[in-house]
Amino acid sequence: MVRYSVHDRSFSALSDLTRRHLLERLAHGPATISELAQPFDISLPGLMKHVRILEEAHLVITEKHGRTRQCRLGSEHLDDAAHWIQTYQRRWEGRLDRLGGYLEKKGARR
Amino acid sequence: MVRYSVHDRSFSALSDLTRRHLLERLAHGPATISELAQPFDISLPGLMKHVRILEEAHLVITEKHGRTRQCRLGSEHLDDAAHWIQTYQRRWEGRLDRLGGYLEKKGARR
Repeated sequence: MVRYSVHDRSFSALSDLTRRHLLERLAHGPATISELAQPFDISLPGLMKHVRILEEAHLVITEKHGRTRQCRLGSEHLDDAAHWIQTYQRRWEGRLDRLGGYLEKKGARR
Repeated sequence: MVRYSVHDRSFSALSDLTRRHLLERLAHGPATISELAQPFDISLPGLMKHVRILEEAHLVITEKHGRTRQCRLGSEHLDDAAHWIQTYQRRWEGRLDRLGGYLEKKGARR
């Protein structure tokens, strides 16, 4: 059950454009809150709210360095989210392959 | 921008345990609404609501067959969602590899 609540949070965090942009920025390297805020037309408290959601989903890790807060990508739960999708993709593609094989055999028998 | 609203819907649809269970079931093959409802302690209107959200996110395709509605996995947008995650994973892993290479070189110089 824990695994599922983790997925709830990961996918929910990923369902917002601003939060995906923040992750895209952090994939290039760590950044402070004000560096993250720069390209966005958003208030600092607004940005902090998005960062907190990403932090709660373990997609971002933040650390206080003196007076600034440094953010970096916490990729483990991004792996988990991708893994969930891939498992069901593979199952689905396996089904399509088997269906293709069946139709091929059926065609060969005619 | 269209691409992003697609991602909003995909990830939002994936952020619910019941909806992920429905996709897991459909990865094994198509099912009618009542077949989908069977393992869940949920009303048919409640289930229909989840199916509609999955349908709007293009993760599920439904077709009316006489008096029943057949559901199947629409995997294209699942591919899109996985692709988004993988792109940023690769970028991030590339950074870690470069960092590893740098630290190795630095160690070798000592």
